[in-house]
Amino acid sequence: MGVSSLTTERTVHHARFAERAGATAVMIIPTSYWKLTDAEIVRHFDTVAKAISLPIALYNNPATGGIDLSPEVISKVLEIPNVTMVKESTGDVNRMHRLVQFADESVAFYNGSNPLALAAFVAGARGWCTAAPHLIPALNVHLYEAIERKELDLARALFYRQLPLLQFIVKHGLPRALSAGLELTGTQVGPLRTPLLPLEAPQVEELRRILVKLEVLRA
Amino acid sequence: MGVSSLTTERTVHHARFAERAGATAVMIIPTSYWKLTDAEIVRHFDTVAKAISLPIALYNNPATGGIDLSPEVISKVLEIPNVTMVKESTGDVNRMHRLVQFADESVAFYNGSNPLALAAFVAGARGWCTAAPHLIPALNVHLYEAIERKELDLARALFYRQLPLLQFIVKHGLPRALSAGLELTGTQVGPLRTPLLPLEAPQVEELRRILVKLEVLRA
Amino acid sequence: MGVSSLTTERTVHHARFAERAGATAVMIIPTSYWKLTDAEIVRHFDTVAKAISLPIALYNNPATGGIDLSPEVISKVLEIPNVTMVKESTGDVNRMHRLVQFADESVAFYNGSNPLALAAFVAGARGWCTAAPHLIPALNVHLYEAIERKELDLARALFYRQLPLLQFIVKHGLPRALSAGLELTGTQVGPLRTPLLPLEAPQVEELRRILVKLEVLRA
Amino acid sequence: MGVSSLTTERTVHHARFAERAGATAVMIIPTSYWKLTDAEIVRHFDTVAKAISLPIALYNNPATGGIDLSPEVISKVLEIPNVTMVKESTGDVNRMHRLVQFADESVAFYNGSNPLALAAFVAGARGWCTAAPHLIPALNVHLYEAIERKELDLARALFYRQLPLLQFIVKHGLPRALSAGLELTGTQVGPLRTPLLPLEAPQVEELRRILVKLEVLRA
Repeated sequence: MGVSSLTTERTVHHARFAERAGATAVMIIPTSYWKLTDAEIVRHFDTVAKAISLPIALYNNPATGGIDLSPEVISKVLEIPNVTMVKESTGDVNRMHRLVQFADESVAFYNGSNPLALAAFVAGARGWCTAAPHLIPALNVHLYEAIERKELDLARALFYRQLPLLQFIVKHGLPRALSAGLELTGTQVGPLRTPLLPLEAPQVEELRRILVKLEVLRA
Repeated sequence: MGVSSLTTERTVHHARFAERAGATAVMIIPTSYWKLTDAEIVRHFDTVAKAISLPIALYNNPATGGIDLSPEVISKVLEIPNVTMVKESTGDVNRMHRLVQFADESVAFYNGSNPLALAAFVAGARGWCTAAPHLIPALNVHLYEAIERKELDLARALFYRQLPLLQFIVKHGLPRALSAGLELTGTQVGPLRTPLLPLEAPQVEELRRILVKLEVLRA
Repeated sequence: MGVSSLTTERTVHHARFAERAGATAVMIIPTSYWKLTDAEIVRHFDTVAKAISLPIALYNNPATGGIDLSPEVISKVLEIPNVTMVKESTGDVNRMHRLVQFADESVAFYNGSNPLALAAFVAGARGWCTAAPHLIPALNVHLYEAIERKELDLARALFYRQLPLLQFIVKHGLPRALSAGLELTGTQVGPLRTPLLPLEAPQVEELRRILVKLEVLRA
Repeated sequence: MGVSSLTTERTVHHARFAERAGATAVMIIPTSYWKLTDAEIVRHFDTVAKAISLPIALYNNPATGGIDLSPEVISKVLEIPNVTMVKESTGDVNRMHRLVQFADESVAFYNGSNPLALAAFVAGARGWCTAAPHLIPALNVHLYEAIERKELDLARALFYRQLPLLQFIVKHGLPRALSAGLELTGTQVGPLRTPLLPLEAPQVEELRRILVKLEVLRA
């Protein structure tokens, strides 16, 4: 459960609420208005970690959160006992390589950049945090299973097959792309939270064509 | 008065509160977790603008807000009747040039990037939004007056004299740098809001030396 | 006279040729295929400087030369006795500010970024290296003279008047834009050196409109 | 054989020389002082391709060549009959994905970014252009063979084992790093071409430690 907030106090507040509500783990992305120093990032996680007994996943996504956590500082945060997972969403597989080098080959990192799904698994990612299963769950699972079975050629074919959808949802933003896709596949999802607006008609049409090609929709 | 918030609804709520509380104008920086499209940015401002009768300043600061408003989209937002001012903080004087070109030479833009103080005034900025007067009010005002009197050589000398302080407060972040500076000059300001931490001792010492050189502190 | 070359040996060769041919100064931009370290940059200039007795201008233009010289390394190169000038073309006025800080207020730097013409003069540039006088010499000179006379409002008006042409020639590349402009104004310039191609017709038309507005061409 | 040069004419000259000298293929990286348009890039390759009957490899390496070829323009160049290979060195595996999408899954692309060795093979690269075999040929070959045999866990282990060396030679530049490494392993290579300088002693020591860990050198 995501418990991120602008201040450490409020993040602690959300984290405790999550714990009481029965969450099994919490995820935290630093989202301060001011760029944070490494010391501030470590203290932020440390303060929350001491306030709860749940395992914590550090989430690095500079494109949305506005702060880029280097592999070095991530490895420092991972020394906090109950920070046990990393979700890496910079979109650069080299960052995963460096994380493995700074932390350790046993580091439990998860890929959060959809177009890196194949590269990340091969780099050692434990899993893939993705919104794509709302639209193409079978393809997502098959990619994972092909990797598990070391069927590289199949994994590559499955990856390139779903890549246009993965690129589309990243390019247009998950809330806009997913809600349009869900509507296309027959699930009413209601309006987006402002200031977000729905996709324009040509983009919806492009998404429809991608889903038709993936046999999620009929032509 | 700043009334920015993650959603349009909450921004409207803050803006109305500001109006009732007697504010003479409000400033809004878009700070969505998701990158916003141009249409979303325009609608965000339009919705708030329709909800109040105060003049509004658009604030562009991608380094803190996470969203970069192009001169094109800024000029579109300026077509909203009560959006009458722009605070430009990208730190690139070319952005101000393009804003003047896209909007019009009469556009009321204010510089928000301290190290651009001189270049921005010369590019046509109406004013300078800065936290530096907490520490060096006289120097700031003298620069403005020198520009007003077209004393270019004096303006340049005053600018280079205060530039090390301007660079310092930008580099270390306004809350950290200003609170340290205020403490050094004898004003107790209390702790920073988490996750921010105070400057480290060597940085405080560097700031002290800058303030001594500016004759704000005695050696 | 430009004497830059990929290797130091060949640069020395060109520099000596320039000296024998009667050049009054040479300009050197490092253009190595491999990124150069600061020590390599300093040695490159030092070797050439020792081989000739002409004054040398260091030219920094990462967009064309591929190597970005920091204000720090430029100030080190300026310690070489006959390196006496800097042409700064990064397009960021803050780089000029830092150069003045690292070198000294008497540093003889020249602006090489056309859209920074106004900001650079105000920051202390001795001059402006520009190809624009092939098309609008009077406007360029008038801007310089307005600055010399501290007529800030006139300088600003002259700057914004010529800015569309300055932006055009930078955007499309000097050889393409200038040759098209010279042809439009009646000077035959011959073909560009490959792999460069002439501007496409719509771009030539855009340039024509800019020159008409500047009264260089009749409508 | 590399035949790149600043002008198209000279590149043709080198390409013809290579053909007469018995080369089996040539590689071309565009290295113009001026940024090239897509049309110029296509014509550059087309002119050279028509002048020889050898197969040509397009080489994309913006960090050294200064020009970044998009997957779109690369796929256009690949329509020239004897341009049959691509060496991709941007260091971003997403660029390889997009190249496969724009060209076709049969596109013969080779990885030129050492730290991407594993990710590139998995993305479908035919091979790996690397200078690392001067120092660790067995490790490089074993990685390739593990991929060929779909032994993903072994490939990953071999990759992470050699990654520190791959990162070192990229960080310090191939000529500096390789010549230092060859000297350490007993091969005299002579001085670097100016303006390049040899690695400093602490960097040579770092390289020595890496090679000891890889059992290329004894402790």
